[in-house]
Amino acid sequence: MSILIRNGYVIYGEDFEIVKADVLIEGNSIAEVRKGINESADTVIDASGRVVSPGFINLHTHSPMGLLRGLADDLPLMDWLQNHIWPREAKLTPEYIKVGAYLGALEMIKTGTTTFLDMYFHMDAVAEAVLDSGLRGYLSYGMIDLGDPEKTEKEIKEALREMKSIEKLNSERVQFVFGPHAPYTCSIALLKEVRRLASEHNRLITIHVSETMAEIGQITERYGKSPVVLLDDIGFLGSDVIIAHGVWLDSRDIQILARNGVTVAHNPGSNMKLASGVMPLQKLINAGVNVGLGTDGAASNNNLDMLEEMKLAALLHKVHNLDPTVADAKTVFKMATLNGARALGIKAGIIKEGYLADLAIIDFNQPHLRPINNVISHLVYSANGNDVETTIVDGKILMLDREVLTLDEEKILDDAEKIVGKIG
Amino acid sequence: MSILIRNGYVIYGEDFEIVKADVLIEGNSIAEVRKGINESADTVIDASGRVVSPGFINLHTHSPMGLLRGLADDLPLMDWLQNHIWPREAKLTPEYIKVGAYLGALEMIKTGTTTFLDMYFHMDAVAEAVLDSGLRGYLSYGMIDLGDPEKTEKEIKEALREMKSIEKLNSERVQFVFGPHAPYTCSIALLKEVRRLASEHNRLITIHVSETMAEIGQITERYGKSPVVLLDDIGFLGSDVIIAHGVWLDSRDIQILARNGVTVAHNPGSNMKLASGVMPLQKLINAGVNVGLGTDGAASNNNLDMLEEMKLAALLHKVHNLDPTVADAKTVFKMATLNGARALGIKAGIIKEGYLADLAIIDFNQPHLRPINNVISHLVYSANGNDVETTIVDGKILMLDREVLTLDEEKILDDAEKIVGKIG
Repeated sequence: MSILIRNGYVIYGEDFEIVKADVLIEGNSIAEVRKGINESADTVIDASGRVVSPGFINLHTHSPMGLLRGLADDLPLMDWLQNHIWPREAKLTPEYIKVGAYLGALEMIKTGTTTFLDMYFHMDAVAEAVLDSGLRGYLSYGMIDLGDPEKTEKEIKEALREMKSIEKLNSERVQFVFGPHAPYTCSIALLKEVRRLASEHNRLITIHVSETMAEIGQITERYGKSPVVLLDDIGFLGSDVIIAHGVWLDSRDIQILARNGVTVAHNPGSNMKLASGVMPLQKLINAGVNVGLGTDGAASNNNLDMLEEMKLAALLHKVHNLDPTVADAKTVFKMATLNGARALGIKAGIIKEGYLADLAIIDFNQPHLRPINNVISHLVYSANGNDVETTIVDGKILMLDREVLTLDEEKILDDAEKIVGKIG
Repeated sequence: MSILIRNGYVIYGEDFEIVKADVLIEGNSIAEVRKGINESADTVIDASGRVVSPGFINLHTHSPMGLLRGLADDLPLMDWLQNHIWPREAKLTPEYIKVGAYLGALEMIKTGTTTFLDMYFHMDAVAEAVLDSGLRGYLSYGMIDLGDPEKTEKEIKEALREMKSIEKLNSERVQFVFGPHAPYTCSIALLKEVRRLASEHNRLITIHVSETMAEIGQITERYGKSPVVLLDDIGFLGSDVIIAHGVWLDSRDIQILARNGVTVAHNPGSNMKLASGVMPLQKLINAGVNVGLGTDGAASNNNLDMLEEMKLAALLHKVHNLDPTVADAKTVFKMATLNGARALGIKAGIIKEGYLADLAIIDFNQPHLRPINNVISHLVYSANGNDVETTIVDGKILMLDREVLTLDEEKILDDAEKIVGKIG
């Protein structure tokens, strides 16, 4: 299988240089990028007036939560979780979660996301949706033991069961990740065992850390230290760990994250909507911490649009620091692409020969993206997910001219709508 | 001319109640809203799976600035203005501004804006574009005299010339508004004369007030009082005044605005991107001040998408106050619709019998807007401008199924692109 994308504005290489060029995809990777490629190809896409961008990497989400979109807004985090989200999640069967996963996959494909790091439950059901959709999914089962040793054992058993189930799919695109929920919901015993298992099975770990002030208070009271210091002290941290949120990090925390090569998945939309706070982006970047971008779940965002998320990230940090020069367009664009790929250890996130063919073609023939004065600026500040026209993952076209080829869009929307009465 | 919109989810009345109903438009106003209207109509629109929303009212923008979109980002306000925007604006001929106005009108129609309050120059050129487009435009010439009496006279003359030119168009849809730029760029003499003329000609006034901390410093140094106190002291304020931004308002300022019935046009995207600061939304609302919503120009946003702007408003104030209950979805939706109409004194901004037929039909048959758990939440938190399918102003269809009927989209995009080299 080969694809030739002609005449687009290509965002090329690590520096995101804009070049008018053709892109040749062979198999699952980018074979060539240059002007006037004359090879024949199985599929030829005319990208005139369009931008060929690395696909977006959503580094923290809960993909099936689209089912809960709009069911509870404008509420404090704990009220939201305890009285609205958790009671509804208790009603989610594997079957419902699969419907949510399909809805999430559809939304991601339609907005140019090519890879995502997920945390939810019944991830074997999610894995099937990911496999079908053509997306690249890193899937973690969110473990919560609340300090109960019986629950610890049960959670680890479930995680390993889901790992094996996902491994059986035998797809490079669908990977298991360990996902202890957070230091305030997991015991030290669970966290230590997860660390051991992740190293043994060569798997990544993702975990919510320092999302709210309340969490900091709780952990400090229980352990006499910050969540990050706690995780460092038990040997949990490493370059295979991706912490989500990292809103309330102090200078010592940031140094620890930098020293251990930990990635932080920033979720500006969710942090703003739940009023969790503003993460110290500039300090993290200055300390050399790898920072990626995520949407969080659609119940606290309320969408999975990485183009919108880039704008939120840029604007939030400018106003918070009263400095318009921070979180510039290129920095934020890199967070949404290359930094995510680095965190996951995949050769993706940029368009360059030899890299995975994970990309999005964005239609710039629209009034809000004209004149084409600055491609990266337009993607960060002017565009939104609906501007994505074509999405390619692993050298396969998932959406062409807004038509999703791998999934039955109408059926997924209908299925999602049918669940409303059952969990609302 | 009559239009019947069938089977949509209609956002009805002042309380934005969601009803499954039909909407009958006769002439330029809404004749009837109820289930099962059987009247015949010139045009019938099937709105199944769609939301019929009041059109959005952009209460502060500079519509031709799309031409400068992306030309200068991530810069401090004064560097941005003095070294990038003003030198380019100096090159803008009436002909170029008309191209920019067409681009802006196109963008607004495509994102469901039906009315806008504009400030720029060569507004007679802008007025032609507005007239053609079918939008409802309130157009002000931005006056700047920098304390030079000769310039004062010149600016007033130009404003009156543009007023007469716009009046000659003889269209209810295109109205002249007085637009002294700001207290720091206009003399007291100019402001007083504008106040007198506005009352004489029964015209609204719009002006930038308290946008940046630097402005507060400058005005306080020059006059020994805040910009709002200054304007109050010279008798400038009234219920016909719409101030843009209002970021740095203290409690006394807020009381003055409330007492005078002044409207504030909030521009969260621009205030965030230029790092101007966070306006005191809660305090203004609590004081009973009417607050509308605007995008500001596309050079500091960088689009004119009111759906995106609603999300920015909600999220900004939640995180700034560390309180997720503030700026809830309905409050923000009202800012973008009814509050804008109130400021302009038009019977619009809601869908109700007898109100102007200014509305947007939004396609909810999309993954990021499903399940339809909460229509207003989805519009504020999940939707974006591209979701708007049909835009109706004054009982006339400007866009149907994403096709703009009043303007030549391709020509406008081409014309805008051609200008790049000339002002870049």
